[in-house]
Amino acid sequence: MNALECIYKRRSIRKFSDAPVEDALVEELLRAAMAAPSAMNLKPWRFVVVRDSERLERLRKVMPFGKMDAGTAISVCGDLRSGRRIVSENFWQQDCSAATENLLIAASALGLGAVWCGVTPLARLQKAVSAVLELPERVIPLNVVLLGYPAEEKPARTQYDPALVSLDSFGTRWEKGNS
Amino acid sequence: MNALECIYKRRSIRKFSDAPVEDALVEELLRAAMAAPSAMNLKPWRFVVVRDSERLERLRKVMPFGKMDAGTAISVCGDLRSGRRIVSENFWQQDCSAATENLLIAASALGLGAVWCGVTPLARLQKAVSAVLELPERVIPLNVVLLGYPAEEKPARTQYDPALVSLDSFGTRWEKGNS
Repeated sequence: MNALECIYKRRSIRKFSDAPVEDALVEELLRAAMAAPSAMNLKPWRFVVVRDSERLERLRKVMPFGKMDAGTAISVCGDLRSGRRIVSENFWQQDCSAATENLLIAASALGLGAVWCGVTPLARLQKAVSAVLELPERVIPLNVVLLGYPAEEKPARTQYDPALVSLDSFGTRWEKGNS
Repeated sequence: MNALECIYKRRSIRKFSDAPVEDALVEELLRAAMAAPSAMNLKPWRFVVVRDSERLERLRKVMPFGKMDAGTAISVCGDLRSGRRIVSENFWQQDCSAATENLLIAASALGLGAVWCGVTPLARLQKAVSAVLELPERVIPLNVVLLGYPAEEKPARTQYDPALVSLDSFGTRWEKGNS
């Protein structure tokens, strides 16, 4: 499938079959995630792949919008302990979000379904997820991505809205053909 | 090109040819951007496409790492004035980062080159870019993406590093085949 089709095909999938996701596919998702750009190429991202059913159950318990029964979860975390701390502190959410989006597009390309469940900046949720995943201090969970073979289908789509686009200055309508 | 190849082919391109990017391609980039997920589907993203050479020059002046000579810039901004303000305030950076990554992958798919220049959370830079783009209060520039036909080539790559991946709890080594 070509890249644009795949971007449109990526939808939040919340129903999963029982079939486990093969390790080779998980690795491919991680390869895609780590192809994202990061500020000053600092790569503050860390990934916790959760496969153990008991740990998955504990994650489900603490995630208000992550109760779905997925056989795999990947938490994308930011490591603020590294090198140029001030840069990582400023940009880790953006870097880890770009990595997460790559991961979701790769999942769509590989026939998997996934949903991004937000954690940061909700302090109580960060603390609860950190406890389940045994994160050290200053490694912060941005999200938990639930993952599996999809048991629901959603049509490809964009939510493109030209009213959200300006030309040159905010509020000046951008229309195809006016520049 | 398939989606995974395209994710690996996306590199930060900083040298551009003089050929202008067609409006139809800019629109395709925006379509891809607005196919990203957002928290509670609130779509806090706004896009300012900059084509005017004088305004591009003013952007270059204020961007410390955005001095490159690109014929098009797209600033991805978060609108914090809308609906459920607390949700947008919490998640706009992540939502807009996902949209930006979609835009960059689409650029790579369409044979364009692009580079993500960070703005948020650097307060002085936010203020300067907001002034150039005439953003209203509470519309915040996350970044400026510089865009054009590439005048440099970079090989596809991932920066995949298995040492950044844990299994079930942080620090437990994840290896393909151990789960």
